[in-house]
Amino acid sequence: MATTGTDLSRMREMNQLSIVWALRGNPPSTVTELAGRAGLSRPAVDVLVQSLVTDGWAEVEEPGANSVVGRPARRFRFRADAGHVLGIDIGVHKILVVLSDLEGNLVRTLRRPADPEADPRARLAAVDRVIDEVLRGAGMTPDDIWAITAGVTGPVDASGRTSLFTPLPGWNAADPVAHLGARFSCPIQVENDCKLAAVAERWKGVASDADDIVFLLAGLRTGAGLILDGTLRRGHGGAAGEIGALKAVRWLTAPGHLESCPGVPASAAPGEAAAWVFQAARDGDRDARTAVRRYTRDLAVGVAALVLALDPQVVVYGGGFSRSSDVVLEPLRQELTKHCLRLPELRASTLGDESVALGGVRLSLDEVDSRLLSDGLAAPSAPRR
Amino acid sequence: MATTGTDLSRMREMNQLSIVWALRGNPPSTVTELAGRAGLSRPAVDVLVQSLVTDGWAEVEEPGANSVVGRPARRFRFRADAGHVLGIDIGVHKILVVLSDLEGNLVRTLRRPADPEADPRARLAAVDRVIDEVLRGAGMTPDDIWAITAGVTGPVDASGRTSLFTPLPGWNAADPVAHLGARFSCPIQVENDCKLAAVAERWKGVASDADDIVFLLAGLRTGAGLILDGTLRRGHGGAAGEIGALKAVRWLTAPGHLESCPGVPASAAPGEAAAWVFQAARDGDRDARTAVRRYTRDLAVGVAALVLALDPQVVVYGGGFSRSSDVVLEPLRQELTKHCLRLPELRASTLGDESVALGGVRLSLDEVDSRLLSDGLAAPSAPRR
Repeated sequence: MATTGTDLSRMREMNQLSIVWALRGNPPSTVTELAGRAGLSRPAVDVLVQSLVTDGWAEVEEPGANSVVGRPARRFRFRADAGHVLGIDIGVHKILVVLSDLEGNLVRTLRRPADPEADPRARLAAVDRVIDEVLRGAGMTPDDIWAITAGVTGPVDASGRTSLFTPLPGWNAADPVAHLGARFSCPIQVENDCKLAAVAERWKGVASDADDIVFLLAGLRTGAGLILDGTLRRGHGGAAGEIGALKAVRWLTAPGHLESCPGVPASAAPGEAAAWVFQAARDGDRDARTAVRRYTRDLAVGVAALVLALDPQVVVYGGGFSRSSDVVLEPLRQELTKHCLRLPELRASTLGDESVALGGVRLSLDEVDSRLLSDGLAAPSAPRR
Repeated sequence: MATTGTDLSRMREMNQLSIVWALRGNPPSTVTELAGRAGLSRPAVDVLVQSLVTDGWAEVEEPGANSVVGRPARRFRFRADAGHVLGIDIGVHKILVVLSDLEGNLVRTLRRPADPEADPRARLAAVDRVIDEVLRGAGMTPDDIWAITAGVTGPVDASGRTSLFTPLPGWNAADPVAHLGARFSCPIQVENDCKLAAVAERWKGVASDADDIVFLLAGLRTGAGLILDGTLRRGHGGAAGEIGALKAVRWLTAPGHLESCPGVPASAAPGEAAAWVFQAARDGDRDARTAVRRYTRDLAVGVAALVLALDPQVVVYGGGFSRSSDVVLEPLRQELTKHCLRLPELRASTLGDESVALGGVRLSLDEVDSRLLSDGLAAPSAPRR
């Protein structure tokens, strides 16, 4: 029952953090408003928020001169630009880097094409160049970055490697965490692209109201990311969501129905072929509609396996093909009714191909928060690995 | 920062609960031992444990007269028999009721055959009779029971009904919670049998060291229960684990390979046929070994779907067929290597067909604990719904 000095200091730290949570993501707030949000007394909040201003976590907004009645209260605002994080999508065909402040406001987004055949050294050098361009544009150095999360295709283990399977040439031997760690001293993590995209959909996408989500990254390859009870499922070895590897669920062959559709221009690259078929189906072309129906029929087997296994609230159709969800979702829904006991809501992603990098930003912000919770609030500075 | 009277009273309650957790499941303990386990001071524990004795949650064990050196310390023990809970398996062919004290010690276990064709009214009347026999044998009345959890086949919704699908005749219209609630005023829940069996394996079975578990209830039907991050996955509508409903994963047809094995006695019931085949395979019969291999080949498709989707640490082969895991596990492992990126550990259940009722006991104990945490520690008495 005795309260020790350590307990009190820890309690002060927790109360200070609860003021940070109460400030962040909110408009400038008075002490009274903060006291209400944090469940603490006004005098206590007054002391805590002053020390946050001194440390550099918050700033004061003095009341404007245009107030006429009484003496308006000072307002406090979280210094969202006290630090920044990066979310990176290392794709087969593109590299996308997003720079965000500590409130998740996107400061810069930069996309550059990647050579599908590039070896890991060339691909990582390209990643470096895009990061440099982003930092330069924002007037920052690597020390200004507090956390980095990069997404790649394939199951990613705890060390950020993709040794089981990867479509990126040579990437099974790549060590992107070590590569980025040579220049950045902040925490760095690498995660599977579908998992990051799923996180983004719950953060800023069409599934922000749901806790149990099956996310589909649909394109020339199909992948899945799972969020259950609001938590990203990584799996014991980082390989959750890889149901597409099972031949019986037919995800490996599903997009082939699009590429082999009669009428597709012979010159079309695989990605262009799919886009052509979706557009032709939209225009009422009979062969194209058949091809889309066959695609959804095969896709539905794997989706149904996930739905029956997990009984999610929402299935999100995302990835490159989600631009054509207007012709995919209805036949997919019809196929799913044949397989499922209970049909979840089916929604189309609105984040498009930025979802992977956005999910990276979210995990980076989570990493910053968990450091704050475990290490406490010193003056703002980048966490170290 | 101010500590209010309510805070202090809540803190005392939390400290009292931490003494309950420190007592429970441990041998009789001294105040010093309890202080160490609960992280509280000796004088505080002295006061708290005395009030637990007064309330009836703990009892004193006076030091024996045979101690020779000094004055030995008094020891305190949790009164595990202050209350009891029931776990019930309402099966197609059997009803199994387990009575447990608050420490999870099984006081009574009673199994009675059930008529597979019984309608809900007759089946629930049979359940009542088995419960009565258990209570009578233990000298108890319904008021002595603090929580009940019953397991049934099929996806169970939040109200305890099985409206989507059930192999129990007429059970889609049954309301077992209401039926049991007519006699018992304690909390009652009904849950899917595979889910309860999964909980039991993590509690007292072969998966107590794992947090990510795929449990298979293997018999004439095959079902799955999922535990992720140590938490039972129910799914948004209670239908998680129902992957067996998907034709593509072949669980519906898998046991048929056993029943149609050449040499099975024509008079054998389906369950006996499977047992005959497993024994014949054990004895080296070629047809039987082929039948088992075909069974595992079909079973593996659904198991692989779950493994690829969830990347668990452990797959537990449980249910009635787990008695024959010696002839099933190795061919199943071989089939899984064909499908999976990363093979989890494959273990055979040791709980046999008591796992469903045992899992019910565990969820009942969890319910009692959550009531203690939310309502606080009054003198021991059955919680009310």
